Amino acid sequence: MKNTKKTLFIIGYGPGDPELLTIKAQNTIKNADILLFDKLINEEILEIASKKCKKVCIDNLIRKKSTSQDEINELIIYYCKHFTRVVRLKDGDPYIFGSGFDEWLVAKKSGIDVQYIPGISSMQGAGLNTIPLTHRGISDGIWVITGTAKEEGMAADLSLAVNSNSTVVIHMGMFKLAKIARTYLINGKGNKPAAIIQHVSISGPKKVICRVRDLVKASQKTDPSHPAIIIIGEVVNLSLF
Amino acid sequence: MKNTKKTLFIIGYGPGDPELLTIKAQNTIKNADILLFDKLINEEILEIASKKCKKVCIDNLIRKKSTSQDEINELIIYYCKHFTRVVRLKDGDPYIFGSGFDEWLVAKKSGIDVQYIPGISSMQGAGLNTIPLTHRGISDGIWVITGTAKEEGMAADLSLAVNSNSTVVIHMGMFKLAKIARTYLINGKGNKPAAIIQHVSISGPKKVICRVRDLVKASQKTDPSHPAIIIIGEVVNLSLF
Repeated sequence: MKNTKKTLFIIGYGPGDPELLTIKAQNTIKNADILLFDKLINEEILEIASKKCKKVCIDNLIRKKSTSQDEINELIIYYCKHFTRVVRLKDGDPYIFGSGFDEWLVAKKSGIDVQYIPGISSMQGAGLNTIPLTHRGISDGIWVITGTAKEEGMAADLSLAVNSNSTVVIHMGMFKLAKIARTYLINGKGNKPAAIIQHVSISGPKKVICRVRDLVKASQKTDPSHPAIIIIGEVVNLSLF
Repeated sequence: MKNTKKTLFIIGYGPGDPELLTIKAQNTIKNADILLFDKLINEEILEIASKKCKKVCIDNLIRKKSTSQDEINELIIYYCKHFTRVVRLKDGDPYIFGSGFDEWLVAKKSGIDVQYIPGISSMQGAGLNTIPLTHRGISDGIWVITGTAKEEGMAADLSLAVNSNSTVVIHMGMFKLAKIARTYLINGKGNKPAAIIQHVSISGPKKVICRVRDLVKASQKTDPSHPAIIIIGEVVNLSLF
């Protein structure tokens, strides 16, 4: 029996393959009254919903060229007032660089019930390309940072990460490749193995392996219009087994 | 139609709630000839398998008190020789401190086909307790480390992590709480908010929130026989909204 209380479900749909949705996410999408999503979604995920379910691409409603989180938040609240079971779909996991908690807070402050359903995070696309994020004796940790952080924040954190034993994973870093490579070079680590991975679990994934100093050149083999993760560390070499 | 080629499936089952399995994991378990698992598994996950499926708790077969990865690897290869569809179940994600790639390598070297199916990682248990791992303006990254790393490795990485803008997540760190607290204190960061989270998505989860300097005292409210994650960073305070 459907719960009739107004609820916003913030769902991570993982790297794109509908089979990598959680069972909970699948069931929630099946019962949704409306799906709110971004333009890069795999359409097979939208087909899980019922025929009655309304489907809204948020990107098409945003007035500004650069998507504004405040405007997205307003839209979410608008739809929550008009529908009972609202599903907000997020690439990867909503709480790992997904602005999911922004939307959680806004809904909560408007008195709307909110549920978070985690998703396979984008960093796990490494494993789908036979790069384990950690491996005994090779990498003792994972440092995940984002290329969209404030300039000084990313630079400071990356300088620390370069000198750690951890695998470094950078989300949304394709416009910062030169800066990333330079940070490693300055620290005498330009030869560390690196990988760029795009669209990891839907058709036509792309993987490029290089040394971190060569990231800019290697990126020419990828499609700049698509999001990617960058992985730096000795674990990258394990994918060659 | 079932594929009859001998295959080892290394599956992450997430934090424990069967609804947080991926659809792919669920389907693979349904078709398994044998499940290999560890003693802390939620039994509802084992019930997904068919009645014909053999179920083997690896911990019960290990001779040494401390589970030896080499012995586990031998057992996996043994079962792969005698069954067609072998499923190895791993807490969280197999490639995030799960020794999953160890098992992948061993099977590959024995000429067995191997497939990795990612799982919701233990760190995402934070979100299930309303602690987002990242949040705009508060945390620009996530640094995940393990308490089982070699002493000097963990100490070195933690000293770097203390000074970053990232949320720090420590797996299997319950026996290192005093060391963790001391590292923060020495760096003048003893007041950072911290959380200990146990068994995040099955019945009876436990969450303790404190300052990092008080981790040892706070841990007395948790069950020391169960695995936990430790989260350190300003995002912990967001769970109080």
